[in-house]
Amino acid sequence: MGKREIILDAMRKLFKEGKAGTASVSDIAKKAGIAKGGLYYYFRSKEEVLDALLEQEYADIMASCKAVLEQSNDNAISKLALLLKSYRSSYVDASLDEYLHMPQNAALHQKSLAQILSAMSQIISRIIEQGVADGDFVCGYPLAYSEIIMSVFTFLLDPGIFPWTGEETVVKMKALADMLEKGLGAETGSFSFLYGQ
Amino acid sequence: MGKREIILDAMRKLFKEGKAGTASVSDIAKKAGIAKGGLYYYFRSKEEVLDALLEQEYADIMASCKAVLEQSNDNAISKLALLLKSYRSSYVDASLDEYLHMPQNAALHQKSLAQILSAMSQIISRIIEQGVADGDFVCGYPLAYSEIIMSVFTFLLDPGIFPWTGEETVVKMKALADMLEKGLGAETGSFSFLYGQ
Repeated sequence: MGKREIILDAMRKLFKEGKAGTASVSDIAKKAGIAKGGLYYYFRSKEEVLDALLEQEYADIMASCKAVLEQSNDNAISKLALLLKSYRSSYVDASLDEYLHMPQNAALHQKSLAQILSAMSQIISRIIEQGVADGDFVCGYPLAYSEIIMSVFTFLLDPGIFPWTGEETVVKMKALADMLEKGLGAETGSFSFLYGQ
Repeated sequence: MGKREIILDAMRKLFKEGKAGTASVSDIAKKAGIAKGGLYYYFRSKEEVLDALLEQEYADIMASCKAVLEQSNDNAISKLALLLKSYRSSYVDASLDEYLHMPQNAALHQKSLAQILSAMSQIISRIIEQGVADGDFVCGYPLAYSEIIMSVFTFLLDPGIFPWTGEETVVKMKALADMLEKGLGAETGSFSFLYGQ
């Protein structure tokens, strides 16, 4: 493990111990077992460590989503269902998620949501294109459709922004399924995996 | 004008002068011509003043949107076009908008976006219901459809979150129009007002 990796790992440990919020650059360096000056060689501030950690976490999620998809020879609908399942189950570490939802970390949170939206939209877009090629969907705007879908997941369904009840969330998912089935010309009920049936 | 109103007005002036970011509670009180203790009677902190100011700004926007709609006897599509025009033209004060887009104010920004989404979704939902009653639309989820639309406007199209080019924005609007026309069973091209044609 390189020094950069060791530092990110130390930051990860601080999160698990619930000390990430109050940890100083010195604390991070100490946890990593390196000198403060050594940390500054890789990162200019605690914020840069956090940025890098989040980037890595999301890259890991995207990589595992892509790996799941590559093993599949299914049609587009099944792949979308698989992707959603993989995305939901590989959510970031709870302590990190909690940290992102604190008001003082809203900027970092917003940046993360934007990164997730962009990365996931690329993956979804490829699946929609497959659906079009297979004759399952009709869609002139695969990427923009994907961005609209991800706006719902990253913003409207973020529990830190909107505290919807489970029932309210199901209605939103039914509406999204309805909109997508009609918008993509897919079979009625084919997006029912969105609300878990 | 009551004292509460005078304080909010002072805050508004500080924004126009570009002093909102650095202004202390004392500065706000001074601008309002009242004692600091007087301000604390109405607001516990600068943040509470800002919260109240934003709430008022958005309430004003919603009121003007509603007023525009009430004067109209048009069909649902025309009302949606009118609402969008009114919403876009009545955007918040530029200095306030700039303030909200600073990283340190991301929490307040996020809260505002959530408020706009909820308020505008109520208005759009009523119009979709009219469209259903008139036979122009078919929609089982008017409110959730409205929330999905507003997720696109408040999050995906926020220039401070995603710096899309004008051309990229047009593609997203064309995709949304396509999705809504099909989702609502509306005539092809009827949502072209979204991309300005």
